[in-house]
Amino acid sequence: MQQILEDILFDVKNQPNTGSIATYIPELAKIDPSKFGLYLKFLDGSAYSIGDSMETFSIQSISKVFATALLFSKIDDKMWDRVGKEPSGNPFNSLVQLEYEKGIPRNPLINSGAIVVADMLVDILQDPKVDFLNFIRYLSSDQTIDYNMFVFESEKNTGFRNVALANFIKSFGNIRNDVNEVLDFYFLMCSLAMSCQQLAESFLLFANHGVHPKSREAIMTVSQTKRMNALMQTCGFYDEAGEFTFKVGLPGKSGVGGGIVAILPKKYSVAVWGPILNAKGNSEAGMKALELLTTKTGYSIF
Amino acid sequence: MQQILEDILFDVKNQPNTGSIATYIPELAKIDPSKFGLYLKFLDGSAYSIGDSMETFSIQSISKVFATALLFSKIDDKMWDRVGKEPSGNPFNSLVQLEYEKGIPRNPLINSGAIVVADMLVDILQDPKVDFLNFIRYLSSDQTIDYNMFVFESEKNTGFRNVALANFIKSFGNIRNDVNEVLDFYFLMCSLAMSCQQLAESFLLFANHGVHPKSREAIMTVSQTKRMNALMQTCGFYDEAGEFTFKVGLPGKSGVGGGIVAILPKKYSVAVWGPILNAKGNSEAGMKALELLTTKTGYSIF
Amino acid sequence: MQQILEDILFDVKNQPNTGSIATYIPELAKIDPSKFGLYLKFLDGSAYSIGDSMETFSIQSISKVFATALLFSKIDDKMWDRVGKEPSGNPFNSLVQLEYEKGIPRNPLINSGAIVVADMLVDILQDPKVDFLNFIRYLSSDQTIDYNMFVFESEKNTGFRNVALANFIKSFGNIRNDVNEVLDFYFLMCSLAMSCQQLAESFLLFANHGVHPKSREAIMTVSQTKRMNALMQTCGFYDEAGEFTFKVGLPGKSGVGGGIVAILPKKYSVAVWGPILNAKGNSEAGMKALELLTTKTGYSIF
Amino acid sequence: MQQILEDILFDVKNQPNTGSIATYIPELAKIDPSKFGLYLKFLDGSAYSIGDSMETFSIQSISKVFATALLFSKIDDKMWDRVGKEPSGNPFNSLVQLEYEKGIPRNPLINSGAIVVADMLVDILQDPKVDFLNFIRYLSSDQTIDYNMFVFESEKNTGFRNVALANFIKSFGNIRNDVNEVLDFYFLMCSLAMSCQQLAESFLLFANHGVHPKSREAIMTVSQTKRMNALMQTCGFYDEAGEFTFKVGLPGKSGVGGGIVAILPKKYSVAVWGPILNAKGNSEAGMKALELLTTKTGYSIF
Repeated sequence: MQQILEDILFDVKNQPNTGSIATYIPELAKIDPSKFGLYLKFLDGSAYSIGDSMETFSIQSISKVFATALLFSKIDDKMWDRVGKEPSGNPFNSLVQLEYEKGIPRNPLINSGAIVVADMLVDILQDPKVDFLNFIRYLSSDQTIDYNMFVFESEKNTGFRNVALANFIKSFGNIRNDVNEVLDFYFLMCSLAMSCQQLAESFLLFANHGVHPKSREAIMTVSQTKRMNALMQTCGFYDEAGEFTFKVGLPGKSGVGGGIVAILPKKYSVAVWGPILNAKGNSEAGMKALELLTTKTGYSIF
Repeated sequence: MQQILEDILFDVKNQPNTGSIATYIPELAKIDPSKFGLYLKFLDGSAYSIGDSMETFSIQSISKVFATALLFSKIDDKMWDRVGKEPSGNPFNSLVQLEYEKGIPRNPLINSGAIVVADMLVDILQDPKVDFLNFIRYLSSDQTIDYNMFVFESEKNTGFRNVALANFIKSFGNIRNDVNEVLDFYFLMCSLAMSCQQLAESFLLFANHGVHPKSREAIMTVSQTKRMNALMQTCGFYDEAGEFTFKVGLPGKSGVGGGIVAILPKKYSVAVWGPILNAKGNSEAGMKALELLTTKTGYSIF
Repeated sequence: MQQILEDILFDVKNQPNTGSIATYIPELAKIDPSKFGLYLKFLDGSAYSIGDSMETFSIQSISKVFATALLFSKIDDKMWDRVGKEPSGNPFNSLVQLEYEKGIPRNPLINSGAIVVADMLVDILQDPKVDFLNFIRYLSSDQTIDYNMFVFESEKNTGFRNVALANFIKSFGNIRNDVNEVLDFYFLMCSLAMSCQQLAESFLLFANHGVHPKSREAIMTVSQTKRMNALMQTCGFYDEAGEFTFKVGLPGKSGVGGGIVAILPKKYSVAVWGPILNAKGNSEAGMKALELLTTKTGYSIF
Repeated sequence: MQQILEDILFDVKNQPNTGSIATYIPELAKIDPSKFGLYLKFLDGSAYSIGDSMETFSIQSISKVFATALLFSKIDDKMWDRVGKEPSGNPFNSLVQLEYEKGIPRNPLINSGAIVVADMLVDILQDPKVDFLNFIRYLSSDQTIDYNMFVFESEKNTGFRNVALANFIKSFGNIRNDVNEVLDFYFLMCSLAMSCQQLAESFLLFANHGVHPKSREAIMTVSQTKRMNALMQTCGFYDEAGEFTFKVGLPGKSGVGGGIVAILPKKYSVAVWGPILNAKGNSEAGMKALELLTTKTGYSIF
């Protein structure tokens, strides 16, 4: 297995990049584009890694999976009254669909949907910022994980389209709390800094029927976990869900920080990081590495 | 002429209303729906009025004409780099068109366009709030005109869709100043309280080739005035431009406060007020009164 | 007056053209792009002309005005159950708006609307092709006017978007007759060959309260005529209604054959022809000539 | 296994239906709504069935999978120049997306995409209608399969939206052959009459790396098969892909005739039929039966 990962590292390092790193959030534009790491964790406890797998980066949209899982585990199917479960077919920040569908976002893994999820979390959590962080720390069994306040400030000061989305949804009545409070929480969740190792650890429950691999606590039901995986499969990669499903064939989620996490049900979770993004906003090296991983190991859902 | 107006008053008062007053701005929902006034001012100085023509009300979107005229008179055709000149064909607050047209609003008389106009005014005016108010006071030769701070606050606290519009435009780079500063100025302009008499006075320059009827100052050029009138003709009535052009046949502008102002080039300006709106957001009594006026007087562009 | 027209001819001939002639209908692509004619006819019977004003060309979308007028004169306001009266804000052949508005076209002067008008005419006319031609011949007092079968065939064989529009409308139930029969009639109406002189003659009734200037027959009521003029003002120039209203300030209609007809109520009708189109599909020379005409004569609605 | 199927039959028969059968194709409206059948075929050759599994019905959109597979096996990745690979997020016959994306359909499993596939097949097949039928007969090892000409005629006479789609695509140049010829072929493919047993047989290659289970011929490569399965997973269920992925978790395709086929890679194919459709156009009984099957057997990709 370690040899396979070394081969992947070699291939990825020798692949010319054609995209560029995300620059619309100034703080993200400062990252060294040549970074690359991968961490693979099996349910049996074995783990393999290559490259910068212990270095933290901005998880960005990957946080949407955590937020959805936390909410889903708390209020179950009631959440679907306010956010859909289907792929959007539009770029991740489109307002068009939202207008035609009266403020109900297509799914919780696009920006609009995650903002509505944030609003619901603000309602049910005692101290949203602390509770959310504790949830992630518990999932990954790592108390050192934290928000990156520079990224948070950077995003808050430039995230005009997200402010537009949130106010637009509010105008349809699908945000209940103060818009700025909800947005602050949303931007904070996106600012989480995590390493491939920490991400792989924290996603293991999705490969494990919703059960925390260490504490054995059933955080989500089997059915909820299946729903989460179906959501990641169909909605986790902006408008590249079809391409990812074909090339990688695993449920997962990407972020514009260059991270991708994916799982093989009943087997493993894997996190990969490469800051250069393709035209659709997904990590180039990450896509390539996961494609090689499923091809070389034969582990895929198809 | 006075007899014609009395007949109009009689007809309007006896017409059953089928619409309702604007309620999305709480402060506007408090207005007595039975109010009605009309003020007709000829270029020769003669004037006629009926009903509550001296009572002030919230001019709302009518302020977009003042803002556009002020900006146009200052920077001329340069303003059209950032806002279009064509009817939108969509409800007045649609974000869809804005998305497909990359943040360039269709025209300055819809919300998105007026927000961009507000941004440009913030750039060129020394003290936007004071200068704009002075411009209106000068046009109407009336120093008592003022903003209504209750309406301003009410709109600022509930105008989520306008906040969405402004941030969305900012995300395309078509707003240069701080979004909140621009929005504050925009909401303030909308909050202007004016009477039919004051509105008719201040619109007279559009019937007079851009020349202030009292001071004789050429505020706009003949060509600029023609453009303003063309804009009002094609874009002044949300998605009811065709209906208004047919029924009334005059360039004009309506607001959700129930006011409508229109002009007959080289002849007169007329302002009318009735708070109950039809399904398209235009004053029911106002539309009816202006239709009767042009029919009974034969004064129309067609 | 003749001197004004000669000056216009001089100016237009010396203006560099930046657009190109319509090529999507192969037969239209064969026209000599340097053609130019103008015919101006006053209600008092006087007439002035310059250039190729007696040469026939393909009137294309100008036929939509004739079709609408004929239908309107026969079934009055019942026609508005199936077609709207407002500008569309979209390119002339957009299917998007039609989808969101369930098969009801925005107005009868865009392709979709004219196809629905054609369907209604098929229902009420004994022999649509003959009756429509006779209507035009009667309006222009000229029995030589005829369809151009080469243009008809050319358009029928390449008008895929119009076939799409018609079938799409049929799928919403807003076409009652056989789609191909309706389309044949629609393409035939577009294929009418007329000269500036014939067009100016046949539009005179719109400047004359609906009364045929020679026979004195009231073809349309005063109110119907006002509606027709309002329609032309707001919807006659694709998505350049605002620009045309500003520059020319007259109700009118253009066609991709390079023709434009406009009227000044109670005064005159004017037809102009120049095959080179601007980016919005309107005749470049035609726009320029009409702008010069209203500027030099001072005759405009504003 | 047979007992599981009997339980499913019992559950499905006792589930109240809330939807209705497809009526927009008159011939389909004649079907007995209480029909229900299921056929499950394993790669090892074993097979199980319940209900009306040997009765033929109109496969409708399921034919899109066959057409795509046939084309893909012949011209490989060249097909993706003219049709996309991503979910559409819009109802299956939307023209809106097509307009914004210039005539390139989102994927080959929606109507617009299948029409483009039909156009490409017309280009490369000697005798499209015969060759396509032979392909299906070969896949299912059954020479009795045939088109249903009543369904074909019914669809041809009422399929206005498909005629609109085809002509619209043609207007963008993405259909090369005569529109009517392409549509005839498209409608004919949709009219195929097949039983659950025949469908399950013919889909077995998608579970078998592209290899015909009887002849052992490699009809598609492993990579092509993976792509087909990814397409079915993300695009096979109109705008219910997310729901189906969650509830059933298998790649598949549904048709408005009430059929659904799905596969579990390396294991089995399963076809189910129940004419009553839910609001999204997928068989109610079919969705329920497949959900029960994957739940009761534990066979699922998640």
